[in-house]
Amino acid sequence: MIYLDSVASYPSLPEVDEILYSTAKNNFANPSSSHSLGEQGKELVEGAREAAADSIGALSSEVVFTSGATESNNLIIKGVILPLLLKGQKPHLITSILEHKCVLSISRYLESLGCEVTYLHPNSDGEIQPSIVKNAFRENTALVSIMHVNNELGTINPIAEIGEVCMSEKIPLHTDAAQSYLKLETDVDELNVDFMSLSSHKVGGPKGVGIAYIRDLKDLDISPVVHGAGQEFGLRGGTLPTPLIAAFGVAIQSFSKYYTLEKTNKLKRQLLEGLEKANIKYRINGGRNVIPSCISLTLSSSNIQALLRCNHASLALSQGSACSARSIEPSHVLTALNFDREQASKTLRISFSHKNTGEDIKILLDEIIKFTGN
Amino acid sequence: MIYLDSVASYPSLPEVDEILYSTAKNNFANPSSSHSLGEQGKELVEGAREAAADSIGALSSEVVFTSGATESNNLIIKGVILPLLLKGQKPHLITSILEHKCVLSISRYLESLGCEVTYLHPNSDGEIQPSIVKNAFRENTALVSIMHVNNELGTINPIAEIGEVCMSEKIPLHTDAAQSYLKLETDVDELNVDFMSLSSHKVGGPKGVGIAYIRDLKDLDISPVVHGAGQEFGLRGGTLPTPLIAAFGVAIQSFSKYYTLEKTNKLKRQLLEGLEKANIKYRINGGRNVIPSCISLTLSSSNIQALLRCNHASLALSQGSACSARSIEPSHVLTALNFDREQASKTLRISFSHKNTGEDIKILLDEIIKFTGN
Repeated sequence: MIYLDSVASYPSLPEVDEILYSTAKNNFANPSSSHSLGEQGKELVEGAREAAADSIGALSSEVVFTSGATESNNLIIKGVILPLLLKGQKPHLITSILEHKCVLSISRYLESLGCEVTYLHPNSDGEIQPSIVKNAFRENTALVSIMHVNNELGTINPIAEIGEVCMSEKIPLHTDAAQSYLKLETDVDELNVDFMSLSSHKVGGPKGVGIAYIRDLKDLDISPVVHGAGQEFGLRGGTLPTPLIAAFGVAIQSFSKYYTLEKTNKLKRQLLEGLEKANIKYRINGGRNVIPSCISLTLSSSNIQALLRCNHASLALSQGSACSARSIEPSHVLTALNFDREQASKTLRISFSHKNTGEDIKILLDEIIKFTGN
Repeated sequence: MIYLDSVASYPSLPEVDEILYSTAKNNFANPSSSHSLGEQGKELVEGAREAAADSIGALSSEVVFTSGATESNNLIIKGVILPLLLKGQKPHLITSILEHKCVLSISRYLESLGCEVTYLHPNSDGEIQPSIVKNAFRENTALVSIMHVNNELGTINPIAEIGEVCMSEKIPLHTDAAQSYLKLETDVDELNVDFMSLSSHKVGGPKGVGIAYIRDLKDLDISPVVHGAGQEFGLRGGTLPTPLIAAFGVAIQSFSKYYTLEKTNKLKRQLLEGLEKANIKYRINGGRNVIPSCISLTLSSSNIQALLRCNHASLALSQGSACSARSIEPSHVLTALNFDREQASKTLRISFSHKNTGEDIKILLDEIIKFTGN
């Protein structure tokens, strides 16, 4: 199986699997228990929290463990907006039509409760410009939520610049950095963000754990999404999953040993040069400012459906995003870029991991060539 | 280390650790992806969903995977109450003062939004009687939420009978069955419940996964707590954690090989007979109708603090529940039973797993004897 879908889920790192196993086996106590087994679990949790905080230039006291980036997006966006709605205010949220489906789902929910929401449109490259964020500001704007890297196109948004315009109006900025974390710079001060969502399984860690970064957490009026027994600064209830958190910590510390920009760029170059050499017409979607690990290609005369059908068992590729991959509709991202159904059906998302080799790309190229012009 | 805290978290089963490892390693794809690796993941998820549904006499289409029982409690209670509040209604929720802290936290949150909440008081055994539930019914009662087994006392509530009185008034009943699942009968029809919360790590499965059982899910107006990209019938967003779910499925199918009523009762008997033989005065809290795996003991002349302090590294025991074990206040459960601070400080929660032996109980007895009368 040639796995070219790391954006949907990154292959688990070997040391992650090992620590997941040993921690599940040995550290089964509840990390909130006051006996020594519980305290050993708590130490593992706090060690991972420090590793996570260090990796984004944050304080440990600003890192909340959740079940993943989707829950983090819920915690941050609802956490900021709901208390305002409950005070009888009419807050305004700025986001974009290219966000992850969960952010759109959260936004629509908040809209139904009386929140005003502006859905920004990207430029033709799929990028959200700082100027259009600025133009959308209102008196009552309470939060801006723009993803760092788009999960279908790989487009990198200018978050640091968006953060600057937000800062000048004292409007907090949230970014879903699930796709950029450990692959691009995601220091919270460099990016000028107040909130950030991260996911473990996008960086070789286990599924079911993520992080909500909340700047100055203790001074804020954030409402929990999962009410509990006081865990995670009172912001997220539920027994802390020691094995998942410890394994996530190991992924954070190990990822750069596996994933390198150089190797990823080389795979991408090989793919594009191969297409050119074979005279295959393609268009790269998402502009020039994209993350190297992901490429969205529209192949004008290819029969992608047939390619995917025939190679179902040997090629793991996506057409849309994984979250809605079983949908027959063109994805909301491609629709936002004015793709019609046919263009969308000729569009492939290829994403690389450290496990991919030049041989994988050769096989992929052979298959693309085979299904071109049919 | 003698682990006597299975109620806080049950030791992970060997086959659970194995499947967790192999699935994390091999099934790293996103189970929502349409390629074959994604579909293999989806099959694992659906297999576990069927095992879970079978274990409680439910349909697969009524089983929603969450991050654990705390999130399930949030999803069910808020999911039922919030839509009513948003329609401008003033729903009424019936729960008890002995519920898990997260249920109390959810209830207080809903109260702050205008929901009426009745907090039932137990009898002196810590049991919630069906008659007091019935007496609490109002015109606007929208949900009753009573735990099956109390996590500090082990008291079994008469859920089937409570379900009967609820059914006669067509009021839905939710039970948090985290402590009873696979240890007592938890068939949803036998228990007459409409909603149930379950946790994987209380039955030897991994932490970070649980279930919300929702009867006739598709016909109900339940609002998600974690909005997402349509996963889990649109009720719970986030990439499904294939390894956790598969391992939970294995725990469900394996637990009865390890945990037997006979062995658990034997350990409990050994402990109580040992106390009697040593002439140690004790009181069992939570009445006679308690789950065999858990025992709450108040030892009148023991110095429990010293016992726990001296045996910190070798005895894993709880005074309160794990969730709030680092708190210096007597637990809300003991307070509800009118324990003063001193009585609470002389109270131990001992809970057994299949790993405990007669030798463990002997050592525990020796320690209790050593710290009695000091």
